[in-house]
Amino acid sequence: MKNEVKDRLKEGRPIANGWLHIPSGWTAEVMATAKWDALTVDLQHGMIGFDTALQMLQAISTSNLVPMARVGWNRPEQIMKLLDAGAMGIICPMVNSREECESFVQACKYPPSGIRSMGPTRAKLLHGDEYLEKANEQVLTLAMIETTEAVRNLKEILNVDGLDGIFVGTGDLKQSIKAENPNGNIQKLLDSALNMIVEQTQKKQRIPGIWSPSLEVAKVMMNKGYQLISFMSDSMILTQYSRQLVADLKSSFEEKQ
Amino acid sequence: MKNEVKDRLKEGRPIANGWLHIPSGWTAEVMATAKWDALTVDLQHGMIGFDTALQMLQAISTSNLVPMARVGWNRPEQIMKLLDAGAMGIICPMVNSREECESFVQACKYPPSGIRSMGPTRAKLLHGDEYLEKANEQVLTLAMIETTEAVRNLKEILNVDGLDGIFVGTGDLKQSIKAENPNGNIQKLLDSALNMIVEQTQKKQRIPGIWSPSLEVAKVMMNKGYQLISFMSDSMILTQYSRQLVADLKSSFEEKQ
Amino acid sequence: MKNEVKDRLKEGRPIANGWLHIPSGWTAEVMATAKWDALTVDLQHGMIGFDTALQMLQAISTSNLVPMARVGWNRPEQIMKLLDAGAMGIICPMVNSREECESFVQACKYPPSGIRSMGPTRAKLLHGDEYLEKANEQVLTLAMIETTEAVRNLKEILNVDGLDGIFVGTGDLKQSIKAENPNGNIQKLLDSALNMIVEQTQKKQRIPGIWSPSLEVAKVMMNKGYQLISFMSDSMILTQYSRQLVADLKSSFEEKQ
Amino acid sequence: MKNEVKDRLKEGRPIANGWLHIPSGWTAEVMATAKWDALTVDLQHGMIGFDTALQMLQAISTSNLVPMARVGWNRPEQIMKLLDAGAMGIICPMVNSREECESFVQACKYPPSGIRSMGPTRAKLLHGDEYLEKANEQVLTLAMIETTEAVRNLKEILNVDGLDGIFVGTGDLKQSIKAENPNGNIQKLLDSALNMIVEQTQKKQRIPGIWSPSLEVAKVMMNKGYQLISFMSDSMILTQYSRQLVADLKSSFEEKQ
Amino acid sequence: MKNEVKDRLKEGRPIANGWLHIPSGWTAEVMATAKWDALTVDLQHGMIGFDTALQMLQAISTSNLVPMARVGWNRPEQIMKLLDAGAMGIICPMVNSREECESFVQACKYPPSGIRSMGPTRAKLLHGDEYLEKANEQVLTLAMIETTEAVRNLKEILNVDGLDGIFVGTGDLKQSIKAENPNGNIQKLLDSALNMIVEQTQKKQRIPGIWSPSLEVAKVMMNKGYQLISFMSDSMILTQYSRQLVADLKSSFEEKQ
Amino acid sequence: MKNEVKDRLKEGRPIANGWLHIPSGWTAEVMATAKWDALTVDLQHGMIGFDTALQMLQAISTSNLVPMARVGWNRPEQIMKLLDAGAMGIICPMVNSREECESFVQACKYPPSGIRSMGPTRAKLLHGDEYLEKANEQVLTLAMIETTEAVRNLKEILNVDGLDGIFVGTGDLKQSIKAENPNGNIQKLLDSALNMIVEQTQKKQRIPGIWSPSLEVAKVMMNKGYQLISFMSDSMILTQYSRQLVADLKSSFEEKQ
Repeated sequence: MKNEVKDRLKEGRPIANGWLHIPSGWTAEVMATAKWDALTVDLQHGMIGFDTALQMLQAISTSNLVPMARVGWNRPEQIMKLLDAGAMGIICPMVNSREECESFVQACKYPPSGIRSMGPTRAKLLHGDEYLEKANEQVLTLAMIETTEAVRNLKEILNVDGLDGIFVGTGDLKQSIKAENPNGNIQKLLDSALNMIVEQTQKKQRIPGIWSPSLEVAKVMMNKGYQLISFMSDSMILTQYSRQLVADLKSSFEEKQ
Repeated sequence: MKNEVKDRLKEGRPIANGWLHIPSGWTAEVMATAKWDALTVDLQHGMIGFDTALQMLQAISTSNLVPMARVGWNRPEQIMKLLDAGAMGIICPMVNSREECESFVQACKYPPSGIRSMGPTRAKLLHGDEYLEKANEQVLTLAMIETTEAVRNLKEILNVDGLDGIFVGTGDLKQSIKAENPNGNIQKLLDSALNMIVEQTQKKQRIPGIWSPSLEVAKVMMNKGYQLISFMSDSMILTQYSRQLVADLKSSFEEKQ
Repeated sequence: MKNEVKDRLKEGRPIANGWLHIPSGWTAEVMATAKWDALTVDLQHGMIGFDTALQMLQAISTSNLVPMARVGWNRPEQIMKLLDAGAMGIICPMVNSREECESFVQACKYPPSGIRSMGPTRAKLLHGDEYLEKANEQVLTLAMIETTEAVRNLKEILNVDGLDGIFVGTGDLKQSIKAENPNGNIQKLLDSALNMIVEQTQKKQRIPGIWSPSLEVAKVMMNKGYQLISFMSDSMILTQYSRQLVADLKSSFEEKQ
Repeated sequence: MKNEVKDRLKEGRPIANGWLHIPSGWTAEVMATAKWDALTVDLQHGMIGFDTALQMLQAISTSNLVPMARVGWNRPEQIMKLLDAGAMGIICPMVNSREECESFVQACKYPPSGIRSMGPTRAKLLHGDEYLEKANEQVLTLAMIETTEAVRNLKEILNVDGLDGIFVGTGDLKQSIKAENPNGNIQKLLDSALNMIVEQTQKKQRIPGIWSPSLEVAKVMMNKGYQLISFMSDSMILTQYSRQLVADLKSSFEEKQ
Repeated sequence: MKNEVKDRLKEGRPIANGWLHIPSGWTAEVMATAKWDALTVDLQHGMIGFDTALQMLQAISTSNLVPMARVGWNRPEQIMKLLDAGAMGIICPMVNSREECESFVQACKYPPSGIRSMGPTRAKLLHGDEYLEKANEQVLTLAMIETTEAVRNLKEILNVDGLDGIFVGTGDLKQSIKAENPNGNIQKLLDSALNMIVEQTQKKQRIPGIWSPSLEVAKVMMNKGYQLISFMSDSMILTQYSRQLVADLKSSFEEKQ
Repeated sequence: MKNEVKDRLKEGRPIANGWLHIPSGWTAEVMATAKWDALTVDLQHGMIGFDTALQMLQAISTSNLVPMARVGWNRPEQIMKLLDAGAMGIICPMVNSREECESFVQACKYPPSGIRSMGPTRAKLLHGDEYLEKANEQVLTLAMIETTEAVRNLKEILNVDGLDGIFVGTGDLKQSIKAENPNGNIQKLLDSALNMIVEQTQKKQRIPGIWSPSLEVAKVMMNKGYQLISFMSDSMILTQYSRQLVADLKSSFEEKQ
């Protein structure tokens, strides 16, 4: 049992992490053929409950991609259940302080490192009997930095034992900056926050990750040093390209007439 | 994007709000043809998890009824996920204090008014690109008043910024009154509480809503001034009328024999 | 293992048979509390595929009502699968000739009486080890008479060995009569067909059954001698009464204003 | 109740008909926002059973797109059930002769034009009480021409009363041509078949439709005169563009290193 | 309405409580035929969300076994929803203090004993109208003792009014002991904890329950005095025996060759 | 793309083929860890519709086991849809004549060998772009011999081009023999039929397969020369062992008291 993505991230290499919002094992399998390195089932903004998340995690395992999950909130029961269902990494939203980060990391780790409850029903089936022994070191723990409060507390958050990295929620961070600086140059403030975050994270030998609304932005982020690179979602890809294709067809309809 | 029901409530008009307990997109569509003004997917006492709630919210959108949800508890992750899934109003159970009410309202609002996380996956698809801009003003926020503690704190609760109205849980409120007044005249105490609640709510220009166990009681409540009127549920309607019809048929069986 | 409904029908007594169109185990359980004698999962006009039908048959078994199914068409694989899933009676649509009736009955019976394949996965679990031995005699077989062709072939259809009774599809029969008699008095022709069918069926000691669009018509049919009495469906009950209740509430809204 | 797409096709205008292979109400709703004119739930090659098809048809009805279905085979029970579920058009695979076409069309029409059984459970809910009266004229009936046998019998097929048009299965037709002409110039033979089909169909005032593997081919077909234009599927769009986007990101990974 | 299992436990008799991890109403029904006394739907480590849990609770009710649930965490909304869905007992994980135990028990009880919200949608359907009156006394409340902290607080936990018993999570307790005693004789420390727990629980007239990884260990626990006896799970039984059977078949393959 | 099981069968080696009756992707994954060589999703007697079968086929693909399906009946649309969903072998029930066998095999093969329609939605995703080219040779086609009629027609059935082997339905064959020989020694007649079938099948270089009710009988069949060896099902394993374990526990309960 080896989390290949974690290894590569530790070596400083970038990772393409697909983002799943469609509640379907079928589209998860489609995405799993697209040569991402990892896929994240998003239970926060994805249209996905646990019953469907399980099918999606199974579908990801038809490939050798690393299955991950974003939980809806920093709740031990959600974190533990997705780990039991086989997720090899957890992205936790709205981690704004060292305490919240500790609580998140503890939910991911068996004692003595944390308070995770034993019962890795699918994880053990999938990853083998050594799962119990290796889970603490192999599971990726990523805290989301998406408020100005989190940015202010970043150093303390990065100090939490067992935290592997951070994951920036660009949309929320921008909103949060705007709320604090109603008259500021938001894009500039955001950019300098993004730079500062990646720098501090690298300094602490943690992994910097980020979600971006488009491939273009994702590339910019990779060039800033972000390693765990996500952009759009299965839903957004389908939405954008189906609209584009229909518009194109419709314009030929008009030309013809 | 316009929440018609919110507009009409603001004008002081009554609204018929159907109540969904059956975990099925099909019955949600049936109910959506019955000329309610809004339909509430009840994730507290309904037999409904998120995976099914999504199908029900989609089914409601086959009509122009306003989709709403009652969450299981005052939890930001549940509130935000149902808003992302397209609900245009949230009814939150067991709001007993100003703090609880603030926490509820904040979960419903994007910064700077609240802490809602960005990612309106279905909401944006359904309500269009202006969703992000208009959600804070268009989403209905209704706090449930269903304990004597909540009644005592009503004024403070009604003062919370961004709260649109209250929704009385008659069953629970009665239980709570009874627990505090084991020897009191429960019906009388309940009635005066119901009168007081509607009065204070109107005084603060908030919307008074209530669930009733029957159409008859619902009419009484409307006459008291309650505006968001719910009664029974899809399950209860099916239970009551199927029992009634079978009993009627069975009695003809007996007559014949 | 005993099909109580079959016994009572054989004694000439009427039976209230609820009709399920809602694809939900939950509403099936609601209907199962309404004191019907049997419930029929309708896979023809109900919004129900096999995966859901199984849940509904399980839900019916939370009561002691007799579970039945209407198949989508006279197909051995559908008939056998629903029997394997625990249905104790099959209503088969569009049986228009002796050959079609024989084919239907054969699909319901193990050799030497028919060609049913062995593998009563749920039936044996539910009805016990004696299922294999008793299924041929306990399962109800009901052929639908719903075209003028079927009416003309009724005697031959009723002669088929192993057929327990017939079930009139009033809607389709009316359509069929109208198609053949575009200028006839349809209601009169239908009535005399309905009388003739019940008479011939009783003469052959078979069970006459019928579906009616309302309780009122159902009672008329019972008085004609029909025994297996179905009317409306769970969907129709919910549709009719929810509309009625909303209309009533809305009219009080208007009175108030 | 009006099938807008049928009207426009009758006027000779082209129609963009999206193709659904993903078993999900959510992706059906995503596709429904992409400005197709109609969406076809494909129960032949899509990964879709009836239970899911219902959710997809409901999701399509959140828009004003015309819902259609391709059935798995020329079977009356499948055709009728999808019509009952609200489909306003049926595409039927492998119609190779006049007899097969008649059987298909009859399954789509109520008597006296056909043998469709009454029970439009969702269709009536969705399209209103006039559904029963108008269904025969409003439902689109499209027979698939996808073998050399069908091409040879095309004139007779086009003569069948109640058939609205044909729909070419390009992939299967090519296979069939190849099987008969192992050493022929397949592309040329296919092209001339496609030309001949559209010509004969127009001559008989029927609607010519076709599925194409790409937007480019779809445009060529539209220019040939095909009116009901489908290309790719939701699955194929997601597969192609997710692969393309990942490949692009990965190449920036390499550039950086 | 009578919780037979609670009665027998109060009399000091042992109970066989099956453990459900498979997300399926079908396997729940299979397990319900195996003569357990009760079945527990495990929402903590089972692969089960609410939508599936409902189907499983319904499937259990095809028998007269007592339906129970383990919640994912000590959360009132989860506890109340599973009670509303018909569970007659709740096993709550990670109860480490008197306060946590009180919070758990209060969520299980209607006022004045607790804060459970009224709305027993399925419970009332299943258990009858007397449910509301009898639920507080009939529902089993079992707090999990699975950390050294809980063991230290056991007396206080056992003192909580309305708590019926405790349930030992052996796996977690062992982990917790090991974390505190890295160099201790874990098995010995665990054994003495298990003895102490059963003793104190009996002294307080509460019910001692426990989950064991095998039938053998379960028997040992029963002999120690534990009454509510669970071992393995449906998943584990299927895993172990299918592996064993295949291994046996494969060894005959080898013998033959 | 390589069907390893087909290769090994062609070499005359035995294969352990697990049998899936539980409608669940989760139990399919459990079974996939048990070192069977292949797993068959049984849509005839299993409690499984297409929507669930897809999830099960996906779950099997988390391993390298060969996914197969038994269809409910000899219907081209069912066969083709399961092949499109990724099944690499089809077991077809009730093949009683050469004509029926030809029809079955044709449904499994693309032209010119058969009439399979193009659209391998999941098959191509799973098995790669070469699927279209290699499917005809790699997909296993197995006709069920389960009536005396089939036994009489065995030689002709075995002559059908493209048929890879046969699969004996022992239960049905026994029933059929009994129906023809009400006073015969059924076990003896069955045994000699089983011997004859394996012999003739081997003579024609086809693969003999069989389902057995227990591991013991399965071994006897393997020793007779049957190669594709199935026994029990996931449901039966769970049923038998859970009953056995509970009975054992209950007897210790009694000993103690």
